[in-house]
Amino acid sequence: MDAVTFAKGGVRILDQARLPHETAYITCRTPGEVADAIRGMNVRGAPAIGVAAAYGMALSKDPAEAAAVLKKARPTAADLSNAVDYVLAAMKAGKTALDAANGWHRMIRENTAAISRHGASLIPGGARVLLHCNAGPLATAGSGTSLGAVLEAAKTKRVFAYVDETRPRFQGALTSWELAQAGIEHRVIVDAAAGSLMRRGMVDMAMVGADRIARNGDFANKIGTYPLAVAARENSVPFYVLAPLSTFDFSLADGDGIVVEERHEDEVLEVSGKRVYGKGARALNPAFDVTPARYVTAYVTEKGIGKAEGLARWKDTPASSSK
Amino acid sequence: MDAVTFAKGGVRILDQARLPHETAYITCRTPGEVADAIRGMNVRGAPAIGVAAAYGMALSKDPAEAAAVLKKARPTAADLSNAVDYVLAAMKAGKTALDAANGWHRMIRENTAAISRHGASLIPGGARVLLHCNAGPLATAGSGTSLGAVLEAAKTKRVFAYVDETRPRFQGALTSWELAQAGIEHRVIVDAAAGSLMRRGMVDMAMVGADRIARNGDFANKIGTYPLAVAARENSVPFYVLAPLSTFDFSLADGDGIVVEERHEDEVLEVSGKRVYGKGARALNPAFDVTPARYVTAYVTEKGIGKAEGLARWKDTPASSSK
Repeated sequence: MDAVTFAKGGVRILDQARLPHETAYITCRTPGEVADAIRGMNVRGAPAIGVAAAYGMALSKDPAEAAAVLKKARPTAADLSNAVDYVLAAMKAGKTALDAANGWHRMIRENTAAISRHGASLIPGGARVLLHCNAGPLATAGSGTSLGAVLEAAKTKRVFAYVDETRPRFQGALTSWELAQAGIEHRVIVDAAAGSLMRRGMVDMAMVGADRIARNGDFANKIGTYPLAVAARENSVPFYVLAPLSTFDFSLADGDGIVVEERHEDEVLEVSGKRVYGKGARALNPAFDVTPARYVTAYVTEKGIGKAEGLARWKDTPASSSK
Repeated sequence: MDAVTFAKGGVRILDQARLPHETAYITCRTPGEVADAIRGMNVRGAPAIGVAAAYGMALSKDPAEAAAVLKKARPTAADLSNAVDYVLAAMKAGKTALDAANGWHRMIRENTAAISRHGASLIPGGARVLLHCNAGPLATAGSGTSLGAVLEAAKTKRVFAYVDETRPRFQGALTSWELAQAGIEHRVIVDAAAGSLMRRGMVDMAMVGADRIARNGDFANKIGTYPLAVAARENSVPFYVLAPLSTFDFSLADGDGIVVEERHEDEVLEVSGKRVYGKGARALNPAFDVTPARYVTAYVTEKGIGKAEGLARWKDTPASSSK
């Protein structure tokens, strides 16, 4: 079940807003429709957003306009503009947009497969891994990052996962669904329960994805990642960030420059289509938070496993060098 | 609108499971019905549970049996057994159960009013106070504790509150409703957003209630309190625990002895009556967590404001001395 494909002249998106209850697809015929699907989180997860945007570039005869429309769909995921810039550069070099997009997608598949393998090497047999948000095949249009590592490890070892429900949009339901399909035992928890499970010695490591990683290793990820990282360090629980280099933004010195998207307050106030709050209640809905590099035990990219200090050496990659 | 009253031979409970959408009351005619309302969280909040249980003692001719039924309704809130023991002791001294329960309720009203005043003295004008779970009039059958302090402060100063939604049961909806009735500006956030708001300098202090406080100051409170306390200390945000002495369990040396209730996993897996997860998904649902005393800036009880080291001197109170 592919999160994003290009078929019959359109970008075919598995609608993640309707999973796990319904398997439905959306076909986008214009860059604007792809941007809408990204904004509406029908496709979500930084690498998957990047793949969708790359294919979206093949839906227009005006690359500059398509790029502008796609790039402003959501502000935080670095993959979005990295993918679009990659396609633009490849087009300047004479490729078609679709060939370039296919190349980007192939690279993401290879890179997330490598990340999953590297990540799996960090997971000993019997480990209990805490996951936040969803960073598996759905989120990457590939093998996944943090969840990819768990899926890969489970091929040869016994692994157990705690799944943060990930309010407000319950991406934990996607993670639970992907784990269930692979037959991996897991328990869903409310996000605020993760800290005390760590304190009670029930968590062996936390693994998360990322939406944008600055040069020094500070990174944005789904809201709730920062308090998780703080609780992990407080309880000596290793905390790993897994992401392809396409999620890196080497133009940013640190996390202070990361733009955190504020989403509509109804995502918080309404649940399953029902308003939980009284009339006139207001909410604040930051979709991401920024975690300083000092909380991260190690980063896992397609290049391997490294510390924050060594990230800069990974700069010369196809994704970033194409800019 | 009283959370708990005794009227016409029954314990009348404002059904908090239906608020803020519906104002409905449940009348309990037996201690078992009161225990069911406590277990079902129709009445919730440690002090309010205590008041309901005290009145529940007046519904039976067999005090020992009533006490046993009521005490086992929920395991974590200390007020429950403290209130029941208070009524039993008063009955041995010749009082009727109803007189004793009225005395307990009067004491809770006075003590929560005192806590609200002491707590309000910690809130400077213009402060942004973060609240977790619901600890206002509804939760105490009195003036409230942490939310009581905000309500009291707002009578004379400008106060703003961040309201944790408090998964899985969204007690933030009760807090938002009580704040709205008092005209206090606030924003609801998902629980996992609190940490990053602290990091961004948007929170001046956190105030929480408690369900059971050990002699050394370790305390149980709604799940999510511990990671909040950790993030608060990490960001030098003062973290206050507000609770009457009836929430203290001086028989416990520290938090390791606190029993944390595990509630049904459907509270996590179903939201607004709809299942969010795929078939066969499982959840873990600890209702509380335990926060070590070292994270607490100060405790606020009816006796005043104090540090963990000084809690033992508060032991000789009507509530605990009656045991």
